[in-house]
Amino acid sequence: MLNCNRSSLNDKISQFSAFGATKNGGVTRLTLSDEDIAARDFIIDFCQSKDLITRVDDLGNIYATLKGTDGSKAILSGSHCDSVINGGNYDGILGVISAMETIDTLLANHVQLAHDFTLVVWTNEEGVRFPPAMMSSGIITGEFTKETMFKVEDREGITFGEALAESSFQGEFENRLVPNDAKAYLELHIEQGPILEANQNDIGIVEGVVGMVNYDFIVRGQADHAGTTPMRYRQDALVTAAKLLLQLHEAFSGLADDLVFTFGEISAHPNLHTVIPDYVKFSLDARHKDAEVIQQVVDIINHLPQTINQCQIEAIENWARNTVYFNPSLVNAVSDVTKDLNYSNQRLYSGAGHDAQYISKIVPTTMIFVPSKDGHSHCEIEYTSLEQCAKGIDVLLNTVILIDKIAD
Amino acid sequence: MLNCNRSSLNDKISQFSAFGATKNGGVTRLTLSDEDIAARDFIIDFCQSKDLITRVDDLGNIYATLKGTDGSKAILSGSHCDSVINGGNYDGILGVISAMETIDTLLANHVQLAHDFTLVVWTNEEGVRFPPAMMSSGIITGEFTKETMFKVEDREGITFGEALAESSFQGEFENRLVPNDAKAYLELHIEQGPILEANQNDIGIVEGVVGMVNYDFIVRGQADHAGTTPMRYRQDALVTAAKLLLQLHEAFSGLADDLVFTFGEISAHPNLHTVIPDYVKFSLDARHKDAEVIQQVVDIINHLPQTINQCQIEAIENWARNTVYFNPSLVNAVSDVTKDLNYSNQRLYSGAGHDAQYISKIVPTTMIFVPSKDGHSHCEIEYTSLEQCAKGIDVLLNTVILIDKIAD
Repeated sequence: MLNCNRSSLNDKISQFSAFGATKNGGVTRLTLSDEDIAARDFIIDFCQSKDLITRVDDLGNIYATLKGTDGSKAILSGSHCDSVINGGNYDGILGVISAMETIDTLLANHVQLAHDFTLVVWTNEEGVRFPPAMMSSGIITGEFTKETMFKVEDREGITFGEALAESSFQGEFENRLVPNDAKAYLELHIEQGPILEANQNDIGIVEGVVGMVNYDFIVRGQADHAGTTPMRYRQDALVTAAKLLLQLHEAFSGLADDLVFTFGEISAHPNLHTVIPDYVKFSLDARHKDAEVIQQVVDIINHLPQTINQCQIEAIENWARNTVYFNPSLVNAVSDVTKDLNYSNQRLYSGAGHDAQYISKIVPTTMIFVPSKDGHSHCEIEYTSLEQCAKGIDVLLNTVILIDKIAD
Repeated sequence: MLNCNRSSLNDKISQFSAFGATKNGGVTRLTLSDEDIAARDFIIDFCQSKDLITRVDDLGNIYATLKGTDGSKAILSGSHCDSVINGGNYDGILGVISAMETIDTLLANHVQLAHDFTLVVWTNEEGVRFPPAMMSSGIITGEFTKETMFKVEDREGITFGEALAESSFQGEFENRLVPNDAKAYLELHIEQGPILEANQNDIGIVEGVVGMVNYDFIVRGQADHAGTTPMRYRQDALVTAAKLLLQLHEAFSGLADDLVFTFGEISAHPNLHTVIPDYVKFSLDARHKDAEVIQQVVDIINHLPQTINQCQIEAIENWARNTVYFNPSLVNAVSDVTKDLNYSNQRLYSGAGHDAQYISKIVPTTMIFVPSKDGHSHCEIEYTSLEQCAKGIDVLLNTVILIDKIAD
């Protein structure tokens, strides 16, 4: 078993943390911003210094290949270098660093793979500047059309297509990932939740990405003056929305223990302290690995009354995704390597979305998770210790070595 | 008893409805906008055509006087001509029109008052473009300082002082209302609530403006990923805010029947469907004419727990006002006139704020309400029938004639 170099890893984490550093120790590195481009340039410099064969596709995805001895299919690994606003130093970028460290460790230890090993950087995973999330892996796998995505505008009205054209990262369609040329895709990522830490496990063996539904609930009442409308005449959309939210919360709480559901967004109209709200909208994000549990959520929603307290209730399903199951052979390979390394571990499902879930449609795929301190992510205090990051990379690189030996 | 001219009244309502007309039949006439200036110019033209003595003070307030026979104190009446965004054709402007119609009716009927009669237009009652509401009556009565108010900016960064200086309505400080020169201030206004209509009364004899408190409630939790954070680890600020809101709603509902309370504003942070909210703020506006009922509201707030569901709860009192009682002699005069006119009526308190509540601190004041269809105001469908408006003006002008006969 090989181990990655902790000192080299620590340097890379520090170096990437400088690209878009925020005052509280996090990063803001929006897709194709100056900060994102600086991080990408750093990656390109690394690839050139290691004599990797580097290609960029028409979506800005970077593929940098360490050639294998028999020119067979490639084993790919990577993640993304864009972040959310005031995000942390690990989400996404750790997956890129892990592939860089894998290359460094293979070279330092003179390990020659039979297969090509390709570092991949996916463009616009977070989707903060240009929604939706996982945009370029979604285009490659047919989830979105390039035409539509290139027209997506940021808040300044710049389209994704324009931002890409103005960067040095618009390459050729021909350079896109070709499924038949890929043996496997492996992605190391922080868990973004508290489960590994709570169980004192260093490695999460990821079996898939949980299915989910996303709804908006709309409550329509009547706007009237706060000072002049007796309580009995009111159709208050916010009071009714609060009741509906708690009613849903209680109903969902009675379903599976590991169902997670979140009312993350709310808005009221006209949102003035002197006016009874006539329109309130709030969101629901519900996730579980079992389709029948998600169906129970949907059933509860479908049986809501049409009116509550004389306000009209509407539920709009925005989108849903089925649970994505990763490649069982790869999941088992990660598990075997982790056990051989004697690293504490558990199997789990990802609650968050990742490029890997789209790539898994066209290439055998799995993920490796490392713990998130206090479960936090997408924030400046996001943290995974150096040793935990290193253990994750150890699992990754030894899994690469293991599956390199398996015939295609 | 005199009656105003219904046809002339109808013309004026139509004429003012053109200044800032919206496509759905309302008006948007923000303070000192082109639309507001057009309405003001129309008023000035009217005053000149009637040979009124017209003054403008340093706040843009217009005073137009029909001289009385003995040059004694003035009886003042008026309101405001600014509106909210997508407001209606009656709020404020009906009070201006009523003073114009009073002048027209006095002149048409050759009624010579002993006292001066002064039409007043208050600048920036709504406070939508330049908060706060009732700005210039508040400055005159010492509620706000001119210096601070002149620095208030609109959304384009234009200050109230700049907008006034650029208009033709910045007059002299010496022209401000002088309390000792004023016998009474009377303001006709729409009720902005459903009480008169529900009781099938045409006239509201307004005894005062109810006291109120305004609070913000802040709930602080912990932001975490919606897909990866098990329910038992969550400190969800929105779920907790919904519970707090309903808990307050239930507690306040147990107080006086005619207490009104409204949670009009809500915001959540970061307000993303994939993140558990860590910060939710919502407002409370509670109004009642009795100080002890308002104190019961405050007591409930002061006894809230500091934490609910592991989220921190904070209540911030933004401001409070005591109930304003209008001048009993004037209230009785309005009542006597209304009865003599045989118009259906009731006594009530204003739930909404009006310039009259500030002016009442320095001049004997009362108000007259006319019904609001379905209780709606501050919206395009705000409506009071022509005959209801006319009856209100009949009450106003006969009250002016009645109190004109009372010795100062």
